[in-house]
Amino acid sequence: MIRIGIIGATGYTGLELLRWLRRHPAAEIAWLTSESSAGQQLGDVFAAPPETAQQALIPWEQADLSGADVVFCCLPHVAAQGPVAAARRSGARVIDLSADYRLHDPASYETWYGHPHHETDLLRDAVYGLPELHREAIAQAELVANPGCYPTSVILGLAPLARRGWLSGTVIADSKSGVSGAGRKPSLKTHFVEANENFSPYSIGRTHRHIAEMEQELAQLDTGNDWQLIFSPHLLPVTRGILSTLYVNLPQRVDGAELRALYSDTYGAEPFTFLLPEGQVATLAHTTNSNYCAIGLTQVPESLTLIVTVSIDNLVKGASGQAIQNMNILFGLDERMGLL
Amino acid sequence: MIRIGIIGATGYTGLELLRWLRRHPAAEIAWLTSESSAGQQLGDVFAAPPETAQQALIPWEQADLSGADVVFCCLPHVAAQGPVAAARRSGARVIDLSADYRLHDPASYETWYGHPHHETDLLRDAVYGLPELHREAIAQAELVANPGCYPTSVILGLAPLARRGWLSGTVIADSKSGVSGAGRKPSLKTHFVEANENFSPYSIGRTHRHIAEMEQELAQLDTGNDWQLIFSPHLLPVTRGILSTLYVNLPQRVDGAELRALYSDTYGAEPFTFLLPEGQVATLAHTTNSNYCAIGLTQVPESLTLIVTVSIDNLVKGASGQAIQNMNILFGLDERMGLL
Amino acid sequence: MIRIGIIGATGYTGLELLRWLRRHPAAEIAWLTSESSAGQQLGDVFAAPPETAQQALIPWEQADLSGADVVFCCLPHVAAQGPVAAARRSGARVIDLSADYRLHDPASYETWYGHPHHETDLLRDAVYGLPELHREAIAQAELVANPGCYPTSVILGLAPLARRGWLSGTVIADSKSGVSGAGRKPSLKTHFVEANENFSPYSIGRTHRHIAEMEQELAQLDTGNDWQLIFSPHLLPVTRGILSTLYVNLPQRVDGAELRALYSDTYGAEPFTFLLPEGQVATLAHTTNSNYCAIGLTQVPESLTLIVTVSIDNLVKGASGQAIQNMNILFGLDERMGLL
Amino acid sequence: MIRIGIIGATGYTGLELLRWLRRHPAAEIAWLTSESSAGQQLGDVFAAPPETAQQALIPWEQADLSGADVVFCCLPHVAAQGPVAAARRSGARVIDLSADYRLHDPASYETWYGHPHHETDLLRDAVYGLPELHREAIAQAELVANPGCYPTSVILGLAPLARRGWLSGTVIADSKSGVSGAGRKPSLKTHFVEANENFSPYSIGRTHRHIAEMEQELAQLDTGNDWQLIFSPHLLPVTRGILSTLYVNLPQRVDGAELRALYSDTYGAEPFTFLLPEGQVATLAHTTNSNYCAIGLTQVPESLTLIVTVSIDNLVKGASGQAIQNMNILFGLDERMGLL
Repeated sequence: MIRIGIIGATGYTGLELLRWLRRHPAAEIAWLTSESSAGQQLGDVFAAPPETAQQALIPWEQADLSGADVVFCCLPHVAAQGPVAAARRSGARVIDLSADYRLHDPASYETWYGHPHHETDLLRDAVYGLPELHREAIAQAELVANPGCYPTSVILGLAPLARRGWLSGTVIADSKSGVSGAGRKPSLKTHFVEANENFSPYSIGRTHRHIAEMEQELAQLDTGNDWQLIFSPHLLPVTRGILSTLYVNLPQRVDGAELRALYSDTYGAEPFTFLLPEGQVATLAHTTNSNYCAIGLTQVPESLTLIVTVSIDNLVKGASGQAIQNMNILFGLDERMGLL
Repeated sequence: MIRIGIIGATGYTGLELLRWLRRHPAAEIAWLTSESSAGQQLGDVFAAPPETAQQALIPWEQADLSGADVVFCCLPHVAAQGPVAAARRSGARVIDLSADYRLHDPASYETWYGHPHHETDLLRDAVYGLPELHREAIAQAELVANPGCYPTSVILGLAPLARRGWLSGTVIADSKSGVSGAGRKPSLKTHFVEANENFSPYSIGRTHRHIAEMEQELAQLDTGNDWQLIFSPHLLPVTRGILSTLYVNLPQRVDGAELRALYSDTYGAEPFTFLLPEGQVATLAHTTNSNYCAIGLTQVPESLTLIVTVSIDNLVKGASGQAIQNMNILFGLDERMGLL
Repeated sequence: MIRIGIIGATGYTGLELLRWLRRHPAAEIAWLTSESSAGQQLGDVFAAPPETAQQALIPWEQADLSGADVVFCCLPHVAAQGPVAAARRSGARVIDLSADYRLHDPASYETWYGHPHHETDLLRDAVYGLPELHREAIAQAELVANPGCYPTSVILGLAPLARRGWLSGTVIADSKSGVSGAGRKPSLKTHFVEANENFSPYSIGRTHRHIAEMEQELAQLDTGNDWQLIFSPHLLPVTRGILSTLYVNLPQRVDGAELRALYSDTYGAEPFTFLLPEGQVATLAHTTNSNYCAIGLTQVPESLTLIVTVSIDNLVKGASGQAIQNMNILFGLDERMGLL
Repeated sequence: MIRIGIIGATGYTGLELLRWLRRHPAAEIAWLTSESSAGQQLGDVFAAPPETAQQALIPWEQADLSGADVVFCCLPHVAAQGPVAAARRSGARVIDLSADYRLHDPASYETWYGHPHHETDLLRDAVYGLPELHREAIAQAELVANPGCYPTSVILGLAPLARRGWLSGTVIADSKSGVSGAGRKPSLKTHFVEANENFSPYSIGRTHRHIAEMEQELAQLDTGNDWQLIFSPHLLPVTRGILSTLYVNLPQRVDGAELRALYSDTYGAEPFTFLLPEGQVATLAHTTNSNYCAIGLTQVPESLTLIVTVSIDNLVKGASGQAIQNMNILFGLDERMGLL
C-alpha cells in the first residue's frame, strides 16, 4: 500500500483527492494536515460519511513526512514552496497541486506570481505533470508539478496542432470554469447569490497567470511559428467543470479526415483523453465527476477557422484526478487505477 | 418627493430597496451609507446600470439625518440599535429592517439576541410593520420595525387561524429560504459550492430567533389556546424566495368552503396577500421578484390536518418591498405605489 | 461475472445503473434495451466517455433474456408488469425499479396506480428490496421490488421508532427531491426554466402514491399504534438528492441517549445507513453521488416533538445504488461491492 | 391607452411582455391568444398573481384584430408569417418577435429557415427593430421585426467598430445564453437535469440562423471591409441572460481613449445601452431583469486584439423589453416608459 500524506486537506482539491483515494485499491491515508481546522475531524468541516468523517486533521508541523511514500500538497501558490521542499527533503515523492513548481523559469514565476522563488534547485527538477505530454519523465520524477485546471484543457486541446506547426497568428481560448476552481475560501465573488444566475468574464486577454503554463508547454511542442495566445476565463454558475472553446486559424486548408487523424493518433492510446465522434462538441456533461478529457473538432466550412471544444472536470482531470494519475505513473501502477 | 436615506446600502436588503425605489414616483435618494465601501460608488461594489452605479457611498457619520424624510436602516441586528435611535432623534421617520425593534419585550430581545437593548423607550413605541395586521398603527408610527422574512410568511399563513382560535397542539412550520436571506457577507455556508446542489436544515426545532417574532404576533391574535410552534428553516439553492409549509391540526372538522372564506375575508382587500384558487399550492414562482404573498390551502381528507403553503420573495415582501409598503402607509400614499 | 440485462437503459435510473456497474468488479453488461432509442448507441442519447458511448441499444423484443443472470427493469410503473414477468419466466433473477411489484396487495396497487395487476402470483413472491428491513428475504428472492426514492428515506428514518411503538398520532414527512426523481421524459414541470430558482410542493397530504409503500412497510414493524402519515413532497432545484424532514410526536418523554441508542443499534452494522453525530442534521451533501443514507436526530426541548432529518441520493440509495446493493445480496457478494 | 393584443401569450416572450406591460402606464391588454391553452386562464398555465392569473386565453381565430392598436406576435418562426400578415391587414401595427420578418432578402430567409416566405411585400416594408440603429425608421413603421436575442448583443457590441471600418479578418462571437432563449416547449435539451450543472456549445461556426441577421445589419454599417463572422452559441445553466465575448483584430493600433470615445459617442445618448467604466467587463448581473445592454472594452496590450464583452437579458432587451421600447417609439411615447 502506498502511504499518503496530504498537506492542506480541507480545500476542494484536498477533499476531492480524499474522495478518489478512498476507492483506490493501493492507497492508504497516513495523515492529513489543515491549518484552519487542525485538531478537528474531517466530519467537522464538511459533510461526509462516517469513515471519512472520523479522520483527524493535524497541523502541518506534526506531519510525519517520512511516514508517507507520497505527499500531495494542496496549498495555494506561494504557500506551497516551503512545505513541498520540506517534504522532498524528507525523502517522500511529492505531487504539488499548486502553481509553485510548474514554471521552469524562476524569473517567469516571479513575474506572474509576484514572489521570488526560493527553491530554484527543486524547481529545475520538477516535472510538469501532464501525462499526455510527459509520461516518461513523470515516471522518474521526484517532484511532480500538477498542471493547472485551465491549462490542462487548453494544452490538451492545442497540443496536436502545436506539434504539427498549425498554430499561427492569434489563438483564442475562451474558457469557462465552475466555481470550485476559485477555491473554498469564502469571498464575494464565490458567494452563492453573486455567482448564481450570473456569468462573468475575468482577467481576460493576457493577464491570467495560467497563460505562462500554457505557453511554456505549447512552446516546447511547437516547430517555431509565431503565434500568440489570448485567454479569456469566465466564471460559470456550476460547481465543477471547465469548457474551453478554442479558435485557431489554420495556416492552410486541412482536410477534415486528416485533422481527426491528427487527434486520434495523438490521443488514441490515452486512457483518459479522447476525441468525440465527428459532428459532436464537448460539453461539461461528458466529463463531470470523471478524469476524462473530451475533445470535439469543428471546422468552419469555407474558412481556415478550426474550433476545438475541450471539456474536463476542473477538480478531477484539472486537479486531483490527474494528481492520482501521476501517482499511479510514479509508482508503476496501472494509470487508471482508482480513477474509473 | 420623499427624501430617503439608507443606512447600510450595500447589503442585499439595501440594494433591493434601491432597485425598487428607482421606480417609485414619489421617492428620491438623499444619501446612502456603507461602512465597508464608504468613499466608493455603488457601481464599484455591485453590477449596476449607470445612474445607480454613480451614487456615492458615505460613512454613517456623514449622513445628513435631517435631510431625509425617512431613513431605512439595513444593518444587522444589534448594530442597528444606535443608528436607528440617532435617526429618530434627528426627526426622521425610521423603518428598521433589522430585528432590533421587533420584539416589544426587552427581556425577550436579550434572550434571543444575546445583547441587552439600550433603547427601550424607542422599542416601546416601535410598530411591527406587517400591514396586514397593523396598518393603522403603522400609519401613525415614527419607528416601524419591518418584519423578518420567515415571520412574514409564517404569520400571514397562520393569522386567520389564530384569530379564529384554530391553532392548537403542535403547529409545524417547515420553511425553506433562498441564500440571499443569509446576507451578503461571505461565509462557508453561503459559498456557491457549498450551497449549490445542496439543501440543508439549520436551527430546527425551537432555536431560530425568528420564533420570538412569530409567537409575539400570533399570540396577540389568538383567543387563548395552548399551542406551540416548531420552526424548521432550510437553506434552498436559489437566490431568493421563501416557501413555508405549515401543518396545523384543526381542533374540529371544518368545511373547506368555510376555511377558504376565512382566508378570503382576511385578505380579500389586501393589495399584496392573496389566496390561491382551490387545489393550488404556493410555489416560489408565484411571488419571485414581487411584493406578493401567495397562500394555498390543502386539507387532508378524513383528517384534521390542514396544510398551508405560503410563498414570498424574502427580499421583497420579506424585507425591502414590505419596507416600501410601510413607507407608503407612513406617508399616506397608495400602498402599492412603486411596488407593482 | 454476473451477466446483466437492463430494460429501459436510457432513463435516469438506467443510466445511473450503468455508471455504477462500470466499476463493479463482478458485473458485465449483456444487453441494454431502449424503446425510444433502439438501434442507436448510448453515446447518441447522452454525453458519455467512449466505452460507454459505444454500447448498443436494442429493442426489448430482441433481448436475450436467458443470457442474463439478472435483469434490472427500469421502466415506468404499469409498463414494467409484463417485461418483469417475461424476464422471470425466462429464469433470470429480476430487480424491478418500478413500483409494480412493491405493494403486496393487488387491490392496493389498483387503487393507487389506477390499473389492475395482471401478475398477482409474481407479486405475492416479490420481496421489497430494502436491505435494512429484508436482507434475508432478499438473499432468497427471485424478484426484488426495489423501493421508491421517497419511501427509502421515510421508512429508514421512521423504522426504529415504528419498531419501538413510538409512532403515534400524526406523523409528518416533509420531503424534498431533486428533479431527476421526475424522470427523463421532458415536461413543463421539469423544464429548466420552470424548475430553476423555483421550489414547489406537489401531491401534498395523502395523495402521493408512495404513501402506500411507506405505510405497508412501517405497519409491518409497528406494534399496533394508531398513527397516520402525512406526506408532502416538494420539487427542489437540484439534479439529485432527497431530504426528508420528519416530525414525530413521541408518546412519552424519551432521553436523548436512549433515542440515539435506538438508531445506533438499528443501523450500527449497516454498510450504508448511518446516524450523524449529536447536534448534526442531514443535508444533501452528506449523500450526493453515494449509496449512503444519513440520519440526524433533533429533539425539541420541553416538547415531545422529535425531528428526524434523512438524506439520500434519489438515484443511488433511492434507486440504482440500492438495486446493486440488492444484486450483491442476491448473488452472495460483499454488499458494498462496486458501491464505494 | 394603447390597446394591445398578444398572439402566443403563453411562451416566455409572451409572458415577459405581460409582466412588463402590467407596469406600463399607457398600455392595456385587449386580448391574449394561445393555441395550446385556449379556453383557460393565464393562472392555469403559469404561476401568477390574481389580476394576471384571471386573464382569458382565446384561440387566434377569435382575436379581435381591429380592437388592438398594436399586436405583438410571439409565435415561432414560420408560424408567425400568416398571423402577422393578417394582423397588418386588419390595420394594427405589428411588432413581430419571431425571425420571420427580420431578413430583408426572401432568398436568404428561405436558405436559413428552410421555408419560402409567403409575404414578401410585407417583408420589404418591415423595419428591423433595433432602436440604436433604426430609431427613425421604427417610428414610421407599420411592421417592426424585433431583433433576435443573440443578434442584439452581437450587433450592439460590434456596430461602432463596423461604422468605423474596424472589422476585418475573422471576428469571433463566443456567446452564452440562458435556457429561456430555447423557448418554453419541453425538450431533452431544456430538461432541468440535462441543462443544470452543464454547459454546452451548439451550432458553432457558421451554422446558427442568427448569423444572417447579424451580417445583414453589420454589413449596412460597414464601409466595405472584408471580414467574416464566426458565431459560437453556448447554453448556460441560468434562466435568463446573454453574454457575448467578441474578439476583433483591429486593423491598426488604436488608442484606448479613442476606442472608448467611439463607443461613448455612439451610445452616450441611448436610454438603455451603455459603456462600462474602463477596466470593467460586462456580466449577466449588469442587465438581469432589465432592458439594459452593458458593454465592456478590453484591449490586449501589445496586440491588435480587442475583446468586447456585451451583456443583455435575452427576454428583455433581447426580446420583450425591446419590443416595448419599439412600441414606445411607434406611438411617440418616452422610449423608457414602463421599462425602468
